[in-house]
Amino acid sequence: MTTFAPRAGTDLYVEVQQFYAAQMQRLDERDLEAYAATFTENGEFRHTPGREPARGRQSILDDLRDFHRQFESDPMQRRHWFNMTHLEPQDDGSIRSTVYALIVKIRPGQPPEVGRSCVVRDILVREHGELRNLSRWVDHD
Amino acid sequence: MTTFAPRAGTDLYVEVQQFYAAQMQRLDERDLEAYAATFTENGEFRHTPGREPARGRQSILDDLRDFHRQFESDPMQRRHWFNMTHLEPQDDGSIRSTVYALIVKIRPGQPPEVGRSCVVRDILVREHGELRNLSRWVDHD
Amino acid sequence: MTTFAPRAGTDLYVEVQQFYAAQMQRLDERDLEAYAATFTENGEFRHTPGREPARGRQSILDDLRDFHRQFESDPMQRRHWFNMTHLEPQDDGSIRSTVYALIVKIRPGQPPEVGRSCVVRDILVREHGELRNLSRWVDHD
Repeated sequence: MTTFAPRAGTDLYVEVQQFYAAQMQRLDERDLEAYAATFTENGEFRHTPGREPARGRQSILDDLRDFHRQFESDPMQRRHWFNMTHLEPQDDGSIRSTVYALIVKIRPGQPPEVGRSCVVRDILVREHGELRNLSRWVDHD
Repeated sequence: MTTFAPRAGTDLYVEVQQFYAAQMQRLDERDLEAYAATFTENGEFRHTPGREPARGRQSILDDLRDFHRQFESDPMQRRHWFNMTHLEPQDDGSIRSTVYALIVKIRPGQPPEVGRSCVVRDILVREHGELRNLSRWVDHD
Repeated sequence: MTTFAPRAGTDLYVEVQQFYAAQMQRLDERDLEAYAATFTENGEFRHTPGREPARGRQSILDDLRDFHRQFESDPMQRRHWFNMTHLEPQDDGSIRSTVYALIVKIRPGQPPEVGRSCVVRDILVREHGELRNLSRWVDHD
Protein backbone atom coordinates (compact mmCIF):
# COMPACT_ATOMS: atom_id res chain seq x y z
CA MET A 1 0.00 0.00 0.00
CA THR A 2 1.36 3.39 -0.91
CA THR A 3 0.54 5.91 1.77
CA PHE A 4 1.95 9.06 0.30
CA ALA A 5 2.64 10.42 -3.18
CA PRO A 6 6.17 10.04 -4.62
CA ARG A 7 8.77 11.85 -2.61
CA ALA A 8 11.12 14.52 -3.82
CA GLY A 9 14.69 13.35 -4.33
CA THR A 10 17.21 13.94 -1.57
CA ASP A 11 19.11 16.68 -3.38
CA LEU A 12 15.96 18.62 -4.18
CA TYR A 13 14.63 18.37 -0.64
CA VAL A 14 17.85 19.72 0.84
CA GLU A 15 18.07 22.43 -1.82
CA VAL A 16 14.59 23.62 -0.80
CA GLN A 17 15.63 23.66 2.87
CA GLN A 18 18.62 25.82 2.04
CA PHE A 19 16.56 28.06 -0.23
CA TYR A 20 14.06 28.68 2.57
CA ALA A 21 16.74 29.35 5.17
CA ALA A 22 18.52 31.92 2.98
CA GLN A 23 15.26 33.47 1.75
CA MET A 24 13.67 33.97 5.14
CA GLN A 25 16.86 35.10 6.89
CA ARG A 26 17.02 37.85 4.26
CA LEU A 27 13.43 38.85 4.93
CA ASP A 28 14.01 38.95 8.69
CA GLU A 29 17.01 41.21 8.09
CA ARG A 30 14.60 43.41 6.10
CA ASP A 31 16.57 42.98 2.89
CA LEU A 32 13.35 43.25 0.90
CA GLU A 33 15.11 43.42 -2.49
CA ALA A 34 16.84 40.10 -1.86
CA TYR A 35 13.55 38.55 -0.77
CA ALA A 36 11.69 39.82 -3.85
CA ALA A 37 14.50 38.45 -6.04
CA THR A 38 13.64 34.92 -4.88
CA PHE A 39 10.41 35.13 -6.90
CA THR A 40 10.21 34.73 -10.66
CA GLU A 41 9.76 37.94 -12.67
CA ASN A 42 6.02 37.20 -12.87
CA GLY A 43 5.80 35.66 -9.40
CA GLU A 44 2.76 35.95 -7.12
CA PHE A 45 2.83 36.55 -3.37
CA ARG A 46 -0.12 36.68 -1.05
CA HIS A 47 1.14 37.04 2.50
CA THR A 48 -2.14 38.00 4.12
CA PRO A 49 -5.54 36.41 3.43
CA GLY A 50 -8.01 38.99 2.20
CA ARG A 51 -5.24 41.22 0.86
CA GLU A 52 -4.82 41.32 -2.93
CA PRO A 53 -1.78 39.23 -3.96
CA ALA A 54 1.18 41.13 -5.39
CA ARG A 55 1.95 40.06 -8.97
CA GLY A 56 5.41 40.54 -10.42
CA ARG A 57 8.72 41.07 -8.65
CA GLN A 58 8.44 44.87 -8.59
CA SER A 59 4.91 44.73 -7.14
CA ILE A 60 6.07 42.27 -4.51
CA LEU A 61 8.82 44.67 -3.51
CA ASP A 62 6.45 47.66 -3.42
CA ASP A 63 3.93 45.68 -1.41
CA LEU A 64 6.57 44.55 1.08
CA ARG A 65 7.86 48.07 1.55
CA ASP A 66 4.33 49.19 2.20
CA PHE A 67 3.68 46.30 4.60
CA HIS A 68 6.93 46.85 6.51
CA ARG A 69 6.15 50.53 7.08
CA GLN A 70 4.11 49.49 10.15
CA PHE A 71 7.31 48.13 11.73
CA GLU A 72 9.33 51.33 11.34
CA SER A 73 8.42 52.74 14.73
CA ASP A 74 8.40 49.31 16.41
CA PRO A 75 11.80 48.01 17.63
CA MET A 76 10.79 44.46 16.85
CA GLN A 77 12.82 41.61 15.40
CA ARG A 78 10.78 39.12 13.41
CA ARG A 79 11.92 35.53 12.85
CA HIS A 80 10.16 33.33 10.34
CA TRP A 81 10.35 29.66 11.26
CA PHE A 82 9.56 27.21 8.46
CA ASN A 83 9.21 23.53 9.24
CA MET A 84 7.55 20.24 8.27
CA THR A 85 8.27 20.84 4.59
CA HIS A 86 6.17 18.56 2.41
CA LEU A 87 7.18 18.52 -1.26
CA GLU A 88 5.15 17.18 -4.17
CA PRO A 89 6.99 17.33 -7.51
CA GLN A 90 4.51 18.06 -10.32
CA ASP A 91 4.44 16.67 -13.84
CA ASP A 92 5.32 20.07 -15.34
CA GLY A 93 8.62 20.18 -13.39
CA SER A 94 7.38 22.59 -10.74
CA ILE A 95 7.31 21.61 -7.06
CA ARG A 96 4.35 22.05 -4.78
CA SER A 97 5.60 22.78 -1.27
CA THR A 98 3.39 22.87 1.83
CA VAL A 99 5.19 24.18 4.90
CA TYR A 100 4.28 25.13 8.45
CA ALA A 101 5.43 28.59 9.52
CA LEU A 102 5.56 30.40 12.82
CA ILE A 103 6.34 34.08 13.04
CA VAL A 104 8.22 34.83 16.23
CA LYS A 105 8.33 38.47 17.34
CA ILE A 106 10.90 39.76 19.76
CA ARG A 107 10.84 43.16 21.41
CA PRO A 108 13.59 44.49 23.70
CA GLY A 109 13.32 43.23 27.26
CA GLN A 110 10.35 41.00 26.52
CA PRO A 111 10.07 37.26 26.03
CA PRO A 112 9.59 36.11 22.41
CA GLU A 113 6.00 36.05 21.25
CA VAL A 114 4.61 33.53 18.76
CA GLY A 115 2.71 35.96 16.64
CA ARG A 116 1.15 33.80 13.99
CA SER A 117 0.87 30.20 12.80
CA CYS A 118 0.61 29.81 9.02
CA VAL A 119 0.59 27.23 6.29
CA VAL A 120 2.75 28.39 3.39
CA ARG A 121 1.74 27.01 -0.03
CA ASP A 122 4.49 27.51 -2.58
CA ILE A 123 4.93 26.62 -6.21
CA LEU A 124 8.67 26.49 -6.82
CA VAL A 125 10.32 26.42 -10.23
CA ARG A 126 13.89 26.39 -11.44
CA GLU A 127 15.18 29.43 -13.30
CA HIS A 128 18.77 29.70 -14.54
CA GLY A 129 19.55 26.70 -12.35
CA GLU A 130 18.16 28.18 -9.14
CA LEU A 131 14.93 27.73 -7.25
CA ARG A 132 12.41 30.55 -7.37
CA ASN A 133 8.89 31.07 -6.08
CA LEU A 134 6.43 31.12 -8.94
CA SER A 135 3.88 31.71 -6.22
CA ARG A 136 3.54 31.84 -2.45
CA TRP A 137 0.17 31.70 -0.86
CA VAL A 138 0.10 32.09 2.92
CA ASP A 139 -2.87 30.83 4.90
CA HIS A 140 -3.26 31.90 8.51
CA ASP A 141 -4.43 29.34 11.05
CA MET B 1 37.67 10.49 19.31
CA THR B 2 34.21 9.55 18.19
CA THR B 3 31.62 11.73 19.84
CA PHE B 4 28.45 10.29 18.45
CA ALA B 5 27.29 6.93 17.15
CA PRO B 6 27.35 6.31 13.38
CA ARG B 7 25.09 8.65 11.48
CA ALA B 8 22.25 7.72 9.20
CA GLY B 9 22.98 8.11 5.51
CA THR B 10 21.88 11.27 3.76
CA ASP B 11 19.06 9.65 1.79
CA LEU B 12 17.61 7.99 4.85
CA TYR B 13 17.74 11.16 6.92
CA VAL B 14 15.89 13.16 4.28
CA GLU B 15 13.39 10.34 3.75
CA VAL B 16 12.56 10.46 7.47
CA GLN B 17 12.11 14.24 7.31
CA GLN B 18 9.66 13.87 4.44
CA PHE B 19 7.89 10.98 6.17
CA TYR B 20 7.37 13.08 9.29
CA ALA B 21 6.17 16.13 7.34
CA ALA B 22 3.59 14.12 5.40
CA GLN B 23 2.56 12.06 8.43
CA MET B 24 1.99 14.96 10.79
CA GLN B 25 0.34 17.23 8.22
CA ARG B 26 -2.19 14.43 7.76
CA LEU B 27 -2.80 14.18 11.49
CA ASP B 28 -3.25 17.95 11.80
CA GLU B 29 -5.81 17.79 8.98
CA ARG B 30 -7.53 15.10 11.11
CA ASP B 31 -7.11 12.46 8.43
CA LEU B 32 -6.83 9.81 11.12
CA GLU B 33 -6.95 6.88 8.67
CA ALA B 34 -3.92 8.22 6.79
CA TYR B 35 -2.08 8.72 10.05
CA ALA B 36 -2.85 5.20 11.30
CA ALA B 37 -1.69 3.82 7.93
CA THR B 38 1.81 5.12 8.65
CA PHE B 39 2.16 2.45 11.34
CA THR B 40 2.88 -1.21 10.64
CA GLU B 41 -0.07 -3.58 10.95
CA ASN B 42 1.13 -4.52 14.46
CA GLY B 43 2.44 -1.04 15.30
CA GLU B 44 2.33 0.48 18.78
CA PHE B 45 1.43 4.07 19.64
CA ARG B 46 1.51 5.66 23.05
CA HIS B 47 0.72 9.34 22.66
CA THR B 48 0.06 10.11 26.31
CA PRO B 49 2.11 8.86 29.27
CA GLY B 50 -0.04 6.85 31.66
CA ARG B 51 -2.49 5.93 28.90
CA GLU B 52 -2.37 2.35 27.64
CA PRO B 53 -0.59 2.20 24.25
CA ALA B 54 -2.73 1.28 21.26
CA ARG B 55 -1.49 -1.92 19.59
CA GLY B 56 -2.27 -2.63 15.94
CA ARG B 57 -3.38 -0.25 13.21
CA GLN B 58 -7.09 -0.64 13.91
CA SER B 59 -6.63 0.02 17.63
CA ILE B 60 -4.53 3.07 16.85
CA LEU B 61 -7.32 4.40 14.67
CA ASP B 62 -9.98 3.66 17.30
CA ASP B 63 -7.88 5.28 19.98
CA LEU B 64 -7.28 8.38 17.87
CA ARG B 65 -10.97 8.74 17.09
CA ASP B 66 -11.68 8.49 20.79
CA PHE B 67 -8.91 10.98 21.65
CA HIS B 68 -10.03 13.48 19.00
CA ARG B 69 -13.60 13.50 20.27
CA GLN B 70 -12.56 16.14 22.83
CA PHE B 71 -11.73 18.50 19.95
CA GLU B 72 -15.12 18.23 18.25
CA SER B 73 -16.65 21.16 20.06
CA ASP B 74 -13.40 23.14 20.09
CA PRO B 75 -12.64 25.20 16.95
CA MET B 76 -8.94 24.60 17.35
CA GLN B 77 -6.26 23.93 14.75
CA ARG B 78 -3.39 21.81 16.02
CA ARG B 79 0.05 21.88 14.41
CA HIS B 80 2.65 19.29 15.31
CA TRP B 81 6.19 20.61 14.95
CA PHE B 82 8.91 17.97 14.82
CA ASN B 83 12.54 19.04 14.96
CA MET B 84 16.08 18.08 15.99
CA THR B 85 15.67 14.60 14.53
CA HIS B 86 18.36 12.26 15.83
CA LEU B 87 18.56 8.92 14.02
CA GLU B 88 20.36 5.81 15.18
CA PRO B 89 20.24 2.95 12.67
CA GLN B 90 20.04 -0.39 14.50
CA ASP B 91 21.70 -3.68 13.63
CA ASP B 92 18.36 -5.30 12.79
CA GLY B 93 17.68 -2.73 10.06
CA SER B 94 15.24 -0.65 12.10
CA ILE B 95 15.92 3.00 12.89
CA ARG B 96 15.68 4.53 16.32
CA SER B 97 14.55 8.14 15.98
CA THR B 98 14.49 10.66 18.83
CA VAL B 99 12.73 13.89 17.94
CA TYR B 100 11.64 17.04 19.73
CA ALA B 101 8.00 17.97 19.21
CA LEU B 102 5.92 21.01 20.02
CA ILE B 103 2.17 21.01 19.70
CA VAL B 104 0.95 24.44 18.69
CA LYS B 105 -2.75 25.16 19.22
CA ILE B 106 -4.53 27.94 17.40
CA ARG B 107 -8.02 29.18 18.21
CA PRO B 108 -9.84 31.85 16.20
CA GLY B 109 -8.85 35.38 17.14
CA GLN B 110 -6.22 34.25 19.62
CA PRO B 111 -2.43 34.09 19.38
CA PRO B 112 -0.96 30.60 18.91
CA GLU B 113 -0.37 28.70 22.10
CA VAL B 114 2.48 26.25 22.62
CA GLY B 115 0.48 23.52 24.25
CA ARG B 116 3.02 20.84 24.92
CA SER B 117 6.70 19.99 24.52
CA CYS B 118 7.43 16.32 23.88
CA VAL B 119 10.19 13.92 23.01
CA VAL B 120 9.00 11.46 20.39
CA ARG B 121 10.75 8.08 20.45
CA ASP B 122 10.12 6.15 17.25
CA ILE B 123 11.21 2.80 15.92
CA LEU B 124 10.93 3.03 12.15
CA VAL B 125 11.05 0.08 9.77
CA ARG B 126 10.74 -0.32 6.03
CA GLU B 127 7.70 -2.16 4.69
CA HIS B 128 7.08 -2.61 0.95
CA GLY B 129 9.77 -0.01 0.37
CA GLU B 130 8.24 2.66 2.60
CA LEU B 131 8.95 3.83 6.12
CA ARG B 132 6.48 2.88 8.82
CA ASN B 133 6.32 3.31 12.58
CA LEU B 134 6.79 0.00 14.31
CA SER B 135 6.32 2.03 17.46
CA ARG B 136 5.94 5.60 18.65
CA TRP B 137 6.38 6.43 22.28
CA VAL B 138 5.70 10.05 23.23
CA ASP B 139 7.17 11.46 26.43
CA HIS B 140 5.88 14.76 27.75
CA ASP B 141 8.35 17.24 29.18
CA MET C 1 21.15 36.34 -11.70
CA THR C 2 22.60 34.57 -8.70
CA THR C 3 20.64 35.38 -5.60
CA PHE C 4 22.57 33.50 -2.97
CA ALA C 5 26.13 32.34 -2.49
CA PRO C 6 27.03 28.74 -3.47
CA ARG C 7 25.15 26.19 -1.46
CA ALA C 8 26.59 23.47 0.69
CA GLY C 9 26.39 19.99 -0.83
CA THR C 10 23.53 17.73 0.17
CA ASP C 11 25.64 15.37 2.27
CA LEU C 12 27.23 18.21 4.21
CA TYR C 13 23.91 19.92 4.88
CA VAL C 14 22.37 16.76 6.28
CA GLU C 15 25.49 15.98 8.29
CA VAL C 16 25.21 19.39 9.94
CA GLN C 17 21.53 18.75 10.74
CA GLN C 18 22.43 15.47 12.42
CA PHE C 19 25.36 17.05 14.22
CA TYR C 20 23.11 19.76 15.66
CA ALA C 21 20.40 17.30 16.70
CA ALA C 22 22.85 15.06 18.55
CA GLN C 23 24.79 18.00 20.02
CA MET C 24 21.81 19.87 21.40
CA GLN C 25 19.95 16.78 22.66
CA ARG C 26 23.08 16.06 24.73
CA LEU C 27 23.11 19.58 26.11
CA ASP C 28 19.41 19.38 27.02
CA GLU C 29 20.11 16.11 28.85
CA ARG C 30 22.82 18.08 30.70
CA ASP C 31 25.57 15.83 29.41
CA LEU C 32 27.97 18.77 29.49
CA GLU C 33 31.06 16.66 28.74
CA ALA C 34 29.51 15.37 25.51
CA TYR C 35 28.54 18.89 24.51
CA ALA C 36 32.02 20.28 25.19
CA ALA C 37 33.49 17.42 23.15
CA THR C 38 31.71 18.75 20.06
CA PHE C 39 34.12 21.71 20.06
CA THR C 40 37.70 21.55 18.82
CA GLU C 41 40.39 21.45 21.50
CA ASN C 42 40.90 25.22 21.06
CA GLY C 43 37.23 25.98 20.33
CA GLU C 44 35.47 29.17 21.39
CA PHE C 45 31.96 29.43 22.83
CA ARG C 46 30.12 32.59 23.70
CA HIS C 47 26.60 31.67 24.77
CA THR C 48 25.65 34.99 26.33
CA PRO C 49 26.39 38.44 24.88
CA GLY C 50 28.46 40.50 27.31
CA ARG C 51 29.91 37.39 28.95
CA GLU C 52 33.52 36.56 28.14
CA PRO C 53 33.69 33.66 25.65
CA ALA C 54 35.11 30.38 26.94
CA ARG C 55 38.24 29.36 25.03
CA GLY C 56 39.34 25.72 24.87
CA ARG C 57 37.33 22.58 25.58
CA GLN C 58 38.12 22.48 29.28
CA SER C 59 37.13 26.13 29.75
CA ILE C 60 33.90 25.52 27.86
CA LEU C 61 33.11 22.66 30.21
CA ASP C 62 33.97 24.70 33.31
CA ASP C 63 31.90 27.62 32.06
CA LEU C 64 28.92 25.38 31.31
CA ARG C 65 29.07 23.78 34.75
CA ASP C 66 29.13 27.24 36.24
CA PHE C 67 26.26 28.43 34.03
CA HIS C 68 24.13 25.35 34.76
CA ARG C 69 24.46 25.80 38.52
CA GLN C 70 21.52 28.24 38.37
CA PHE C 71 19.30 25.37 37.15
CA GLU C 72 20.11 23.01 40.02
CA SER C 73 17.25 24.13 42.22
CA ASP C 74 14.89 24.68 39.27
CA PRO C 75 13.00 21.58 38.04
CA MET C 76 13.11 22.86 34.47
CA GLN C 77 13.65 20.99 31.22
CA ARG C 78 15.30 23.06 28.52
CA ARG C 79 14.92 22.22 24.82
CA HIS C 80 17.08 23.94 22.24
CA TRP C 81 15.38 24.24 18.87
CA PHE C 82 17.66 24.97 15.93
CA ASN C 83 16.13 25.77 12.56
CA MET C 84 16.57 27.66 9.27
CA THR C 85 20.18 26.51 8.96
CA HIS C 86 22.05 28.60 6.41
CA LEU C 87 25.47 27.22 5.47
CA GLU C 88 28.25 29.06 3.66
CA PRO C 89 31.30 26.88 2.90
CA GLN C 90 34.47 28.96 3.16
CA ASP C 91 37.59 28.80 1.00
CA ASP C 92 39.66 27.43 3.90
CA GLY C 93 37.40 24.36 4.20
CA SER C 94 35.52 25.62 7.24
CA ILE C 95 31.74 26.16 7.15
CA ARG C 96 30.00 29.29 8.32
CA SER C 97 26.59 28.34 9.72
CA THR C 98 23.89 30.83 10.69
CA VAL C 99 20.98 29.24 12.51
CA TYR C 100 17.87 30.41 14.32
CA ALA C 101 17.42 29.03 17.82
CA LEU C 102 14.61 29.04 20.32
CA ILE C 103 15.10 27.92 23.88
CA VAL C 104 11.95 26.32 25.20
CA LYS C 105 11.65 25.96 28.96
CA ILE C 106 9.25 23.52 30.57
CA ARG C 107 8.40 23.41 34.25
CA PRO C 108 6.14 20.79 35.86
CA GLY C 109 2.45 21.55 35.46
CA GLN C 110 3.05 24.65 33.36
CA PRO C 111 2.76 25.26 29.63
CA PRO C 112 6.07 25.48 27.74
CA GLU C 113 7.62 28.91 27.69
CA VAL C 114 9.67 30.28 24.79
CA GLY C 115 12.48 31.71 26.84
CA ARG C 116 14.77 33.19 24.24
CA SER C 117 15.18 33.71 20.49
CA CYS C 118 18.77 33.61 19.26
CA VAL C 119 20.87 33.61 16.14
CA VAL C 120 23.65 31.05 16.44
CA ARG C 121 26.79 31.85 14.40
CA ASP C 122 29.02 28.80 14.09
CA ILE C 123 32.30 28.09 12.37
CA LEU C 124 32.39 24.35 11.81
CA VAL C 125 35.48 22.37 10.86
CA ARG C 126 36.19 18.70 10.27
CA GLU C 127 38.51 16.92 12.70
CA HIS C 128 39.31 13.21 12.42
CA GLY C 129 36.44 12.98 9.94
CA GLU C 130 33.83 14.53 12.21
CA LEU C 131 32.30 17.98 12.44
CA ARG C 132 33.35 20.17 15.36
CA ASN C 133 32.64 23.73 16.42
CA LEU C 134 35.74 25.86 15.99
CA SER C 135 33.55 28.60 17.39
CA ARG C 136 29.97 29.32 18.40
CA TRP C 137 28.82 32.84 18.90
CA VAL C 138 25.23 33.24 20.13
CA ASP C 139 23.42 36.53 19.59
CA HIS C 140 20.20 37.19 21.49
CA ASP C 141 17.34 38.87 19.66
